[in-house]
Amino acid sequence: MTPPHRGFPEDEFRRRTQAAQALMAKHNLAALLLTTEPELRYYTGFLTRFWESPTRPWFVIIPPTGDLIAVIPSIGAHLMSQTWVTDIRTWAAPDYDDDGIGLLVDALNEVAGDEGQIGIADQLESYVRMPFADLRRLEAALLTRALVSDAAITRRLRLIKSESEIDKIRHAAAIATGAFNRVPECVASGMSLSQVFRRFQMLCLEEGADWVPYLAGAAEQAGYADVISPATDAPLEDGDVLMLDTGLMWDGYFCDFDRNYSVGPPSAVVQCAHSQLIAATLAAADVAKPGKTISDLFYAMNAVVNPSGDVMEAGRLGHGLGMQLTEWPSIIPQDHTVLEPGMVLTLEPSVTVSPGKILVHEENIVIRDHGAEFLSDLQSADIRVI
Amino acid sequence: MTPPHRGFPEDEFRRRTQAAQALMAKHNLAALLLTTEPELRYYTGFLTRFWESPTRPWFVIIPPTGDLIAVIPSIGAHLMSQTWVTDIRTWAAPDYDDDGIGLLVDALNEVAGDEGQIGIADQLESYVRMPFADLRRLEAALLTRALVSDAAITRRLRLIKSESEIDKIRHAAAIATGAFNRVPECVASGMSLSQVFRRFQMLCLEEGADWVPYLAGAAEQAGYADVISPATDAPLEDGDVLMLDTGLMWDGYFCDFDRNYSVGPPSAVVQCAHSQLIAATLAAADVAKPGKTISDLFYAMNAVVNPSGDVMEAGRLGHGLGMQLTEWPSIIPQDHTVLEPGMVLTLEPSVTVSPGKILVHEENIVIRDHGAEFLSDLQSADIRVI
Repeated sequence: MTPPHRGFPEDEFRRRTQAAQALMAKHNLAALLLTTEPELRYYTGFLTRFWESPTRPWFVIIPPTGDLIAVIPSIGAHLMSQTWVTDIRTWAAPDYDDDGIGLLVDALNEVAGDEGQIGIADQLESYVRMPFADLRRLEAALLTRALVSDAAITRRLRLIKSESEIDKIRHAAAIATGAFNRVPECVASGMSLSQVFRRFQMLCLEEGADWVPYLAGAAEQAGYADVISPATDAPLEDGDVLMLDTGLMWDGYFCDFDRNYSVGPPSAVVQCAHSQLIAATLAAADVAKPGKTISDLFYAMNAVVNPSGDVMEAGRLGHGLGMQLTEWPSIIPQDHTVLEPGMVLTLEPSVTVSPGKILVHEENIVIRDHGAEFLSDLQSADIRVI
Repeated sequence: MTPPHRGFPEDEFRRRTQAAQALMAKHNLAALLLTTEPELRYYTGFLTRFWESPTRPWFVIIPPTGDLIAVIPSIGAHLMSQTWVTDIRTWAAPDYDDDGIGLLVDALNEVAGDEGQIGIADQLESYVRMPFADLRRLEAALLTRALVSDAAITRRLRLIKSESEIDKIRHAAAIATGAFNRVPECVASGMSLSQVFRRFQMLCLEEGADWVPYLAGAAEQAGYADVISPATDAPLEDGDVLMLDTGLMWDGYFCDFDRNYSVGPPSAVVQCAHSQLIAATLAAADVAKPGKTISDLFYAMNAVVNPSGDVMEAGRLGHGLGMQLTEWPSIIPQDHTVLEPGMVLTLEPSVTVSPGKILVHEENIVIRDHGAEFLSDLQSADIRVI
């Protein structure tokens, strides 16, 4: 498995920036203010695990034309100088009196003039990563140049992946496939779920993951109660369904899919539920063609897993995928986003096995001109056995 | 190495909540609104890696008296019901029309009445984790009951760790120590830094880490240019200083320290820099007694690493540690926080070896009545050799 090239050619960042600038003109925005890890990385290529520290805010400004301006803590200057960004303004953060706000206001004034509107991400799946008191200070200092919605510009651009981005997600998925394939040789009845989690993360790293930001799962008799819990020290028992759901990362891109394993031979009910999940995944993949909508995917899966037509309470059946574990859009009945080539999605049907017990399956696809291409290795109807 | 118990007795969450309520009364707050992972977990015990997904907002309200109210996506109801929280209100998120704001406003009105002020974290190291448009919607719906500063209540409480919290951090540190000790047997000249990163994360897991949210490092000749970069595929060479800095987690608590290794015998300059760093750490540990201040720690270290008295640009020489990789306060000259028993800190002196090249060392301590207790295994003056 030869990995793709790391990073992106400078052209790709330039293209992304210019695409944002074209949309800014359309929405009458004199600047875009970026504050979160994926926003900064999308336009600059600034890749670091240092965001784990909540101490310091980081800002990048997209001007109406020309190149980006980074207003960042001095601790990041060296790494940022290795990206295509050349206008890098720094302060010695943390500064208890003014943690970058003065510097940021100056830069925004320079870019947006006296009256220009400044766009900031404000829609679902976003937040503003800076202290709320500083956000208010910023708004006060900007006077008439209000902070307004960024019109979801970055979210819209990130929705369609380039071939280089797709290559990275495919590689991440191949690494996870390698790890999932080795689970039966490393895991056995009697092992605690916390040991299984640890071992699985090691398998992901051995297979080539840069890191494993996400792992959830469960092991319970004939299905599980939820899919977001951390591991307990309870031992695996015959009749358990072990589910492992990973978001591992390669060069800043995620895969996100799960695999179910029956500990010992599966019961008929569990095997039947698993077959249903694969059938639902295939039904969605079948309709996943440009021109169809996200809600079409929902109904294709729901018709298989809920033949009555009912919609489950926690009803998302998949989502976007890329620089983040979960991205826009959500596969729900209310999402009418039209599918386009280059969208990367997870298909994640869920089925109720018995009251309070579910089984969830997940695969990753990219939308192509002709339909869905699987990035993960589509599972067969038969549940895997440990 | 026997791990401490997982989780906390319900009493500890109750104590934290009541301490917050006492401070709320003092600051005339009728409710505290919590939106981020560490805030929610501190009061509820809600522990999941699912926060990696940015899709859904999560809210917890602390009323002036009585128990917490969780207003959360239904996908988290099962896990939240296993904590001590009993008032759990859910919605089927994501909801494109109203992603929990209606439910949240109702709960806040119920708790804060017509006029009560609602506190929200707004100081350094915090942010509000919800879409900015929803935050504005919330503020509009609250009418006269303004969102005001939480007076850093949660930050102040989290500053002093309980013995159970300290036990978890000590255990995380012991796991990292085990991994660092095995580096020389797994790493050799010629190996790529990205391979070293992978192998080191596996060692952390083997030694018992639940997961490894943070790893940074570098390997360059006689020092490195920065400490936040991801790994490259460049091979280790004789004369490199390999630095690995990990924040691994055990039961929701971090350690955060680094180790430096000379690849081959160290030069006199590198050995001298390392000795200076250990001397600086010891100097800070010596003054780390209740009644002294954070700035005292800064000056104790700075006097050793910058005998001229100059202060480096990216000048933080350590920070708080606990549920997050970095916590309040920052060891800078401007921080006059008085040291108290139960504070957990990193001591992180940095020394300039040559223009653009630094060496950084880090240890973890807890403040006791008598002074500093090391939670990490204090290194000797001699740099380790690979």
